[in-house]
Formats: sequence, structure tokens, C-alpha cells
Amino acid sequence: MKSLKFGLIGTGFMGKAHAIALRSVGTAFPSVPSPVLACLVDSNAERASSLAKSWGFAQSSTDWQGLCTDPDIDVVDICTPNHLHKEMALAAIGAGKHVYCEKPLALTTKDAAEIAQAARAAGVRTSMGFNYMCNPLIELAKQAIESGEIGEIFSFCGNYQEDYLSDPATPFSWRCLRAQGGHGALADLGTHLINMAEYLLGPIASVMGSMTTVHRQRPDPASGEMRNVENEDIAQALVRFACGCTGTMDISRIATGKKCGLTFEIFGSKGSLSFDQERMNELRVYKTSDDEKLRGYRTILAGPQHPDYAAFCPAPGHGLGINDLKVIEVKNLLKSIENDEAIFSDFDNGYRVQMITDAIYDSSNESRWVNTEAAAN
Amino acid sequence: MKSLKFGLIGTGFMGKAHAIALRSVGTAFPSVPSPVLACLVDSNAERASSLAKSWGFAQSSTDWQGLCTDPDIDVVDICTPNHLHKEMALAAIGAGKHVYCEKPLALTTKDAAEIAQAARAAGVRTSMGFNYMCNPLIELAKQAIESGEIGEIFSFCGNYQEDYLSDPATPFSWRCLRAQGGHGALADLGTHLINMAEYLLGPIASVMGSMTTVHRQRPDPASGEMRNVENEDIAQALVRFACGCTGTMDISRIATGKKCGLTFEIFGSKGSLSFDQERMNELRVYKTSDDEKLRGYRTILAGPQHPDYAAFCPAPGHGLGINDLKVIEVKNLLKSIENDEAIFSDFDNGYRVQMITDAIYDSSNESRWVNTEAAAN
Amino acid sequence: MKSLKFGLIGTGFMGKAHAIALRSVGTAFPSVPSPVLACLVDSNAERASSLAKSWGFAQSSTDWQGLCTDPDIDVVDICTPNHLHKEMALAAIGAGKHVYCEKPLALTTKDAAEIAQAARAAGVRTSMGFNYMCNPLIELAKQAIESGEIGEIFSFCGNYQEDYLSDPATPFSWRCLRAQGGHGALADLGTHLINMAEYLLGPIASVMGSMTTVHRQRPDPASGEMRNVENEDIAQALVRFACGCTGTMDISRIATGKKCGLTFEIFGSKGSLSFDQERMNELRVYKTSDDEKLRGYRTILAGPQHPDYAAFCPAPGHGLGINDLKVIEVKNLLKSIENDEAIFSDFDNGYRVQMITDAIYDSSNESRWVNTEAAAN
Amino acid sequence: MKSLKFGLIGTGFMGKAHAIALRSVGTAFPSVPSPVLACLVDSNAERASSLAKSWGFAQSSTDWQGLCTDPDIDVVDICTPNHLHKEMALAAIGAGKHVYCEKPLALTTKDAAEIAQAARAAGVRTSMGFNYMCNPLIELAKQAIESGEIGEIFSFCGNYQEDYLSDPATPFSWRCLRAQGGHGALADLGTHLINMAEYLLGPIASVMGSMTTVHRQRPDPASGEMRNVENEDIAQALVRFACGCTGTMDISRIATGKKCGLTFEIFGSKGSLSFDQERMNELRVYKTSDDEKLRGYRTILAGPQHPDYAAFCPAPGHGLGINDLKVIEVKNLLKSIENDEAIFSDFDNGYRVQMITDAIYDSSNESRWVNTEAAAN
Repeated sequence: MKSLKFGLIGTGFMGKAHAIALRSVGTAFPSVPSPVLACLVDSNAERASSLAKSWGFAQSSTDWQGLCTDPDIDVVDICTPNHLHKEMALAAIGAGKHVYCEKPLALTTKDAAEIAQAARAAGVRTSMGFNYMCNPLIELAKQAIESGEIGEIFSFCGNYQEDYLSDPATPFSWRCLRAQGGHGALADLGTHLINMAEYLLGPIASVMGSMTTVHRQRPDPASGEMRNVENEDIAQALVRFACGCTGTMDISRIATGKKCGLTFEIFGSKGSLSFDQERMNELRVYKTSDDEKLRGYRTILAGPQHPDYAAFCPAPGHGLGINDLKVIEVKNLLKSIENDEAIFSDFDNGYRVQMITDAIYDSSNESRWVNTEAAAN
Repeated sequence: MKSLKFGLIGTGFMGKAHAIALRSVGTAFPSVPSPVLACLVDSNAERASSLAKSWGFAQSSTDWQGLCTDPDIDVVDICTPNHLHKEMALAAIGAGKHVYCEKPLALTTKDAAEIAQAARAAGVRTSMGFNYMCNPLIELAKQAIESGEIGEIFSFCGNYQEDYLSDPATPFSWRCLRAQGGHGALADLGTHLINMAEYLLGPIASVMGSMTTVHRQRPDPASGEMRNVENEDIAQALVRFACGCTGTMDISRIATGKKCGLTFEIFGSKGSLSFDQERMNELRVYKTSDDEKLRGYRTILAGPQHPDYAAFCPAPGHGLGINDLKVIEVKNLLKSIENDEAIFSDFDNGYRVQMITDAIYDSSNESRWVNTEAAAN
Repeated sequence: MKSLKFGLIGTGFMGKAHAIALRSVGTAFPSVPSPVLACLVDSNAERASSLAKSWGFAQSSTDWQGLCTDPDIDVVDICTPNHLHKEMALAAIGAGKHVYCEKPLALTTKDAAEIAQAARAAGVRTSMGFNYMCNPLIELAKQAIESGEIGEIFSFCGNYQEDYLSDPATPFSWRCLRAQGGHGALADLGTHLINMAEYLLGPIASVMGSMTTVHRQRPDPASGEMRNVENEDIAQALVRFACGCTGTMDISRIATGKKCGLTFEIFGSKGSLSFDQERMNELRVYKTSDDEKLRGYRTILAGPQHPDYAAFCPAPGHGLGINDLKVIEVKNLLKSIENDEAIFSDFDNGYRVQMITDAIYDSSNESRWVNTEAAAN
Repeated sequence: MKSLKFGLIGTGFMGKAHAIALRSVGTAFPSVPSPVLACLVDSNAERASSLAKSWGFAQSSTDWQGLCTDPDIDVVDICTPNHLHKEMALAAIGAGKHVYCEKPLALTTKDAAEIAQAARAAGVRTSMGFNYMCNPLIELAKQAIESGEIGEIFSFCGNYQEDYLSDPATPFSWRCLRAQGGHGALADLGTHLINMAEYLLGPIASVMGSMTTVHRQRPDPASGEMRNVENEDIAQALVRFACGCTGTMDISRIATGKKCGLTFEIFGSKGSLSFDQERMNELRVYKTSDDEKLRGYRTILAGPQHPDYAAFCPAPGHGLGINDLKVIEVKNLLKSIENDEAIFSDFDNGYRVQMITDAIYDSSNESRWVNTEAAAN
């Protein structure tokens, strides 16, 4: 297997990020199969054609169904609005394609379960766009937890706070509609946090959520009239992990001042970990085994001694960026296909994330703790 | 009114902090009535006598009841273990003394209500030992909220994390006994956080708590045998304020690496605030009115332009310490007595804090949201 | 002009960084001419061929002279050890090629002058590999200075500290030889700092340097014997800018703990700026015009409101990386060629940097202030 | 020796800080001799009398000469403007008093030498007001250096930056007059930095200075007319320590945004140290012996495991303040008198600091390196 032909659907924020990653991955990781930028799909033919040229795709199209069944395509890459994921993913899986999909996998747990099951049945490889967990320092955090370096885990405080809808004058978009975006802050931001939490600490067993829509109406850019916002600005939750660790989560799209505030603190019996995506090249680690006088949080700068960093730069502390995380994500997918082995985060993880967001939603509506396994059915 | 005679009961951590503050307040704040260090009380006569000399008290005693009724005493200052507060406070109030009491006010809401009501009925002035909120930068934060500078408040994330019981080998103490310490992390740490939250944002209306005891036994220093810990290591909560703001709280005495992690983030429509007691001379403020290109969190260093700072130092950024906050707390009490006006935090605030910790406890036990007013009865 | 054919010489740290940038620039900046990865040159034919495939070059070669005169090549990109820059640059210029060269431009001021003059005479476009100044936040800093936002500039404190040779056991390399590396820390690190300083504040007029070689011998990896280090580990300097601003510089390759410590603080009459490459997505800005109570350093996160950032990501605070700076550097070169206009940093800037490093060297040797213009002749 | 009677001359910033410290030291450090606040001296009788009452002095006076010869006084504490230090110190020493003096010791090296020699000859104990070095974390830094924990020391970057004269409209004061203030930024700020450097790394052997007066005139508050500033706003220097370490210093009273920017970085073969007085409760330490994957600067919070901290608070991370450093300074003096042993920083240290500031001044004037021992004669 020397190369894999990618068809990319969608040309927004994530479409471009995927295109950059697909083009760069071979230079950074020469030993994985090369992605071939075969076809770019957008509902607007002119936009598809123009961006295909800019981004280096061999062809463009407006026909995503055609792409999914095109025998020349190995991987279908879905970067469209949330409500389109299901139909596209099922079509691609149905045609035996490997599928790469932005989060969230679907709008409901039921849909997510259906997609994940279809992928398993078809034996195709899948990947979700949970780029933040591809950070070398997150891998380091996972190693520190798994090796027992910070001991038994007591508690977790995780937030994902941004402010892109903090201003009530920011116009209405599909993200505010339940039928197109599904959940609000939970879908956009919470999915990343929940997946990160499960990656690091294992399954979340139960949740107690509280969701709030602060800006209940926003101006519709088309009509200029005020339109009802259908999903939450803020989702807060208490969580309990299967491992016994307990936690809090604050997920907000109106956290004024926060630009990419995906943060966590993990406290264990022998140490602790602290991370903030706004300083994505730093992991803070505390170890009780350090001599007491000189004990304190260590600020570890990402470097070639950490997983995947050396592919980008041989010198430590020089700084990776968000697009580099996407390159690692693509590399992981390429290796998954090459080795025919599942990875974290595949569609099964995407399903779990959807199930937990739905559990938080149900819990908030019903003012009670919800067991996540129960929520899945 | 030129001076006020203080009788201090208790010679532990807080006893010493109060003694330092009583001695220093006159130099920092020459215009308030001078406290006279009249009598130091400890159950051990030798310790009382020796420390009275060191700390500058005119007399010492082992008889706290006698102190409470001594006509020469104006203010009774209670720095004893939690379960002794009630009897001492009621005795002092009964004798018409002003009372200064360390947190928590009592072990139960009912007891706290009784004490607060007795103080109101007697017309005496009271103060709780919530020193952290005496920070000039907390006063600045309050001004920023009240003036509308950061707009309508959306959400609150507040934590108080320390690690003094993180190690399971740390011996059992009265703090681990429900009958002597009352709650665990909630009483020691949560009380500060809850009072701070109400000071800044007004009443907490309802709570949803989750409490965990991780280290269920600790070695008894006397017997060397393992003894059951009766209260929580971790208390986590979702909270809703009467003003509409929602929040999360993580309160832990086993947060490895945290030494005085009293932190909050407050998000509003026009800006936000961020504070960490471990960097107590900094308040971070974000303002949406700043020019977009140069907008970012401002790190404000405490200085003489902020309330009370100039009493300690005319130069900005030189750094106040925890004992200076105690001096401000004492100054506030002295002014409260001089002007016969209630202050935040008096026993009514102490009562509310107790009520809310009990509501978190009930909520955790019953897995349901608890309204704080209901909990009070 | 639709595309430009690049021939890249050198396959080390910088060779790979250039390759990644050349491949990515079209996706990030679709409107500039596309670079074509035409030929990769390395003295080892096998390495050249293998990496050419991995990195996406159409051809490979061991013949850099042939590349320089190849009519199919538009731009010669030099990523070889320092002492080879001169011959290669002159050959490429002689053949009328545009030239992109890693720093330092040459080993001596005389050589650098010769190269810069040749490029001017030939009318070709040139660019130096000073990637750090391509950071959107450095452009923001420059705008803040030029617009007068921080007023008249008083002083500059700039450092570039790394620790790659901190350990005396780190083997000898060509970087330690005067004939191959030229200066030591000054050439590797100081060049970046000096160029950054001149970009932000204009010409440096005079310098007073002090250079130190701490580890005077290192083990030769070939022979295993100790070999004399011929250039400095640390270069410190006082500097005076033509604008009147004065400054200090600390440049070290043995600053234990520093990984990419390119930092500066610039103090002006109306504000100040502070930057640290290890937190390359943050610029700290202080403005005296802020209300006194809420005045403090603002931590500005890079976002699409800043130059070039939006080419990589539409969302603020998501984080660019070092390789993204290289992409901007390539974009600047491509635009320079397209518009036939000089850019900062071209070979004239490369010449000035070399002149100033030599002035620091002379100054250190002669224990006197050296005027940089005098040093140039 | 149970108590020592203090006479304090001067009631400005430092006078008040000393008064607070004298009153608090007994509570924090009960085992050292108690200072008795015997007499407060100010040239204004009313001010002296009023502040004596506020601050707790038994008496007040306008006669500093009388104080110096008063047989009831044990220690003369000098907090007056710089040019008065010499006469007062010599008078006190002449009367056999111990002397506590704010920095700088004198206006010239010659005067400082005379005072230090007189104190030695008289056998009295002395202390300078270099409070910043009394920080528990500075003591920890010194221990880390002396124990070899960070290895052989390579380099030092030390700054002391404030902005109290950054605004050209700030009025003229005695600090701007050579005859009253002596040096400018060097006297106010540089003295602290130089003393700290020598405390940590031993003698400074030679210096190369560059001094600048940016705001050459300031409005006289009396006349309203512009008046010439006679000393420097900025002093920058290269320094070489006797131990072989080299360094840079930036000392500025016009560093806009800096409030107490006394910072240093010390790089050694096995680690490094970093400190910033604006975060005075943190010391950053890097150790090459840490496992490579988890190596990074440790942020150490001051706590009871560090020298002197426990005297103020038994709990770590709760934060000391600038006035607590003054208490430690007073404690050190009291112990010095009790044990009849010299301390760092006594008048010999004050002399060295004066000598080095004068060497920087001469060096700047003469554009040459100046050996500090030579400068002393």
C-alpha cells in the first residue's frame, strides 16, 4: 500500500484544515502511505473547482454521492455541517470506503450507534476529527497516567470554553438549530472535552448536567429578524468515571475572553497534570516524589523526546500549531488503514461521545444523574 | 472610641494569624480604633502564658467562659476547632460582646442560624474569618461587576483545591470527624469559596452536589491504628445564582500539587475576570471594549490605586501577603464596631455559607438539586 | 506568473522545514504563485533520492552547481552549513536565480556585503530564513511601534537563549569551528535576535560586546578525542539604536532549560511590549492609556485579526507553530518575486546582521564600543 | 538580652515599612530579642508626634542628633533621603549604636567606605534595607547554588525595572538631584539588584556600563518651572563575576508597565533558576537530572519547608508580602546583634554595592570596562 486516494466533502474551516494536513503529512511522516488529493466536493461547483486548484486536488465535484461510490476513492473525508454526517458516512461505508469524519459523528446517539455499527460490519477504518488529543503532550499525559507516574487518579476538572457566540449580536447560524447542529456548545466543544477525558481516564459512567441558553434569540443574517436559538450556550456537568475518579466540566460558547480554552487538571495520588490548549506546547506536571524543597509544577515544553514531535522539528520548544495536530490525526488514520487496526478516536469513540452528550442533555432536562450506558439504548 | 480590648481564644494557625493582625493593624490603618491585646486563652496554661508574652497579650488564661463575661473585654475572638464555635459565640454574644469567629460559623445550618440570630438580637457586631475576600483585588473584582464593567454575568467557575490530605499516610485529626470538624473539604475550603461567590455575585439559589471520600481511613496518631474518616475529601457542585448565573465548583483537600488553589473565573457579556489565590497579587480582566487587535486578558498587579493596598505600601506591584489580608479583615471589623454597621462577612454571611454547604451535602446524599432557602429551614 | 520552480540544497533541520513550507504554502495562501518542488540536492545521492520522494520533489541531484545554472529552476533555496552559503548564493545569483538562504548569510561581513551587492546588481529577489519575525504577533508588535501606540521607545531587552550545547559532553560539530560555522551562539541565535531588533526598532548604531567560551573542548564524534571549540557559547552586548533607544542582549547556546528563548521587552513612553518565542502565540502589551485601576499587561492571543493568521485558521487562539512561520516566510518570498519588490528580511538585512555580529565580536576582542557602520567597511 | 530600643528617623515609605516590621517581628519570631519602639524622629514635630502615636512609638522628636546619643537607644534606624545617611550613620556609630540603614548606604564609594570602616572599628552591628534578598525563595536559590544543585554557574541575567518616572510629567524630586539622591535608577533599584547578585554569586569583578537620561527635565512642583534631571533613568551593564560567570543588567526607572520588576535568571551546568519579584512567592528551577520526558522548569511556591516562611504561616502557597520580607530583615538584624555576628547585608555589603554602582557610572562615562576593586580606591 503506497498511497490512498482521498475525496474531501466540505470546504469550510475544517475542509481547509484537512486539505493542509493531507498535503503536509507525507513530508512530516514519510513512512506512512501517501494521501492523494483526488477530489474536492462542494455544493457550489465554482467554489469546488477554484479551491481544488488552490488546495492541490486533482478534481472537483458537486456530487458527494458519486464520490462515495467512486471506485477510485479509498477514503471519504467528511467536513460538512453536523446534520449531513450520517447520510454521507453511511453512503461511504456502504461503498466500502474508509471514512474520516469531523465531530460530532451524528446528531443523536441512535444515529451514531448506527454509523459505528455499520463501519464495524463493513470492516472499514474510521477516524474522528478530535485533533486536540493528537498533541504530543496529550500522549505524554496519557503515558504518565498509564505508567502510574501520577498514581491513582482522584479527580478531573475539565473545561472547554470559547467566546465565539458571546456577543448576542453575532448572527444566527445552522449551529443554533437543533435539526442541523444538534447540541450547541456540547456538540462543538464538549465533544472534544469528553473524548479527551475518556482517552485519558477511560469510560465516563454517569453524568449530571445543567444546560443554559443565555442568548435566546439571534439576528438571522438573511431576514434580519430575530430567530430562536434552539440549543445551549453553556453545558455544565458533574461526571463520574468507571475508574472511580469524579469530575466537573464547564463547556461554554459564551465564555468571553476564551479563544480555545480546552483545559484540564487531573489529580492523582502521586502527582497531577494540567493542560491548556491556549498554551498547547506546555504540559504542567507535579510529582510528589520530587524533593520537598524543590517540588512544584513542572512546565514541560513539547520536544522531540515526545511522541510525533520530531516529525515536525528536531529542536525542542520551537512550537507546534493546531494544523500540525491535524497532520498527526491524518497520520494516525493512514497507519490505521495500513495496519488494519482501530485507533482512538474512531467511530466507536465518536459514538461514545455522542452518547455522553445526550446523557448530559437528558440529565439536564430531567434534573437527575444519568448512567451513560443506559443513555445509549 | 479609641481602643477595643480583644480576648483571643485559640493558639493554632489562625490564633497566630489573628495575633499578628491585631498587632499590625494600627500601623497600617492608624485611623481605626486600636485593638488592645488584652487576653490570650488556651486550654493549656503554660502555652497560653508563654504565647501571650511572645505575641504581646497583657494577660493569659485557660478560662474562656470567664473571658466571655469579663467586663474589660470588648471583642471575643474565636480561633478554636470548629465544634467549639457555637458555645463560645453564644456565650460572648450573651455577654454583649462583639464577636470575631473563624470559619465555619458552626457545624450545622440550625446552629449557625441560632448564632446569627442571637447576634442580631443582641445588636453586637460580628465578623467571620474569610480573609481571602479582603484582598484589594477581590474588592476591585466586585467593583468591576457592580459597575457593569464586565456586563451581565453568564457563568462562574470556582475551585478551592489544596493537597494537605492528599497523602493517605497523613494522620487522622479532628478535621476528619463529623462531630468536631463537620464537613470535610467543604468546611475547610468550600466555605471560603462559597462566601467569595456570594460576595461577588449575590445569593446562590440552588445546588447539585457530589461528595467523595477517597481516603476512607487514616492512621490515628495516638493509637497508630487506622480510623474511619467521616467526611469528604472532595466536594463538587453545580450551582445556580439568584441573578441567573450558573456555575461549577470543585473543592478538594486532596488536589495534589495545589497549595492554596482558590480560583475563579467569571464570564460576562462585556468581559471576564480570573483570579488565583496562589498569585494573589494579580487579577486578570478581559474587556470586549478594547480594540480587537490588542484585546487580551490584562494582568493587573495590586497597587495603591486599589482599595486598602496603600495602607501597606505606596508602591504598586510590591506584593501583599496572606497576613496583610487578615489585617484588612481586622480593620473591617474595627470599623464595623466603630460605625455600628454590618459588614460582609458577618455572622449572617457565615450562616448563609453554612446553609449552602449543608445544601450541597444533602444534594449529594439525595442525588437531587436542593434549593438553598429550603435547606435553611 | 503562476508557479515558481524551486531547487532546494540541503536536507537537514532547515531543509525539511523548507520542504514542508513549500508544500503547504499554496493551501494557506492560494493567491500567491505556487512553488513547484523541482529538485532536491544533497551530496549523498541515495539520501537525495529517497527524501525527494518523501518530500514530493520531482527530481533529486548531487550537483548543486548544475542546479544553480539549470534553466528550469527559478529559485535556489540554500539550507546547507554556514560556510557553503557564499559560494552557492553567488553561483545562483550569477545565473540570475532568485535566492532563499538560511541564516547567517555568510561567515564574514565582507562576504555578506559581496553577496548582497551581487544580488542587488543582478536584480534578483532574495530572502533570509529569519522565520521568527514572520509571526503575526511580531507584525502586530511592529504596527504598535510604528503607529506610535506605545510612544517613543526608551529601551530594549532582547535575549536568545537555548541549551543545545549546555552539556559539555555534547559532541563537537561543524558549528564549533570558526571556518565552518563562523561565530557560535551569535551565528546560530544572535542573528535572529539582531534581525528582529532591527525589524522592530531600526538600525543598531553601536555595540559593546562580551563573548565567552565556557566549554573550551568537546569530544570529536569521529576520533573520540577532545577537540578545541573555536567560537563562543555566550555573547552578551550593550546596544544603541540609531533612534536613541538603548538595549541589552544575552545570547547563549548553554542557557540550561531554555529551548527557544527568543525574548524581548520594549519599553516606550506610552506602553510596552513583551514577547517570548516559547509562547509564540502570545504578545504582551501594556498601555498607559488604560484606566489606572484596570491597567496591566494584556496577553494577546494570535487570531485572524492579526496579519497572516487567517490563512491557517479562522478561529482565534488555536495556535500557530514554527512550521507555519516558515510558510509565511515562503509566502513573503513568493510575493516579493511576483511583485519584484524587496522584503524584510532580504540579503541586505542579512548583510546588516552579519555586520553587527562582527561588530560585537570585534568589540568583545577589543573591549570597546564599535560603531556598526564603521565595522561594515 | 530581652529587648532592644529602636529610634527611627524618617517617616516616608520606608519609615512606615520599618515601623510595621518592628511591631510585627515579635509575633512572627518570638525567640529573637523584642524591639521596643522607643522614639520616632521627623523634622516636622507635629508629624513626628502624630505618627508616633499611630505607629506605636513611645516618644517622638525632631532631634536626630539627640536620638543618636540618647543612652536609652540601642539601635538607630535611618529611613531618610539618601544624602542624609552618612552624617546620621556616623553619628550613631560614634555613639556606639547599632545601625540599620536604608539603601544606598551613601552617595559615593568614599563615603560608604568611611561609614563601613567606622562601624567595623566601633564593633557595632549594622544592616542595610535590602529586603528583597530576605525572601525565603532567595534563600532557597542561594542554597541551590551553594549545594551545587545547579552545577557550575555560566551566566546571569538580572534586571530591576520599574516605571515610577516613566511619565515625563512626573514632578522633579530630590531623587533627581545628584547631591541628594546620588545616582538615579542605579541608587534606587540597581543597589538591590547588585546586592542580590553578589549574595547569590559572589563578588562582581568588573563592569561595563551604559547610562541614559531620557527625560532630561521635569517640572518642579514648587516653581512649576522645568528643572534639569541630574542622574540616569536607565543604567545597563555587562558584568563579570569573580567566579567566572558573566552577566547583563538592565536597571530602569522608566520601564513602562513594570511595577517591581526585580528579576534574574541564573544558568548553570546542571540547572537554572528564575525569579521575578512581581511573583515573589514563586521560584522557577530547572534540573537536568529530571527524566528527559518530564523535564521542565518547576514553579516552586514558597512554603514552610523554606527558610523563615513558617514564622508567618504554617500552610504552603498562602503568600508572603513585601512587608513580611521587612520583618525577616529586622529579625536578621536582631539576631545579628544578639549573637554579635555580621550578616549579609551589612554595611560592608552596602559599601560594595556603592562601589559597584560607582564603577558602572565611571565605566559609562569613560566607555571602558572598570575593575570594581580599582573603583573602590
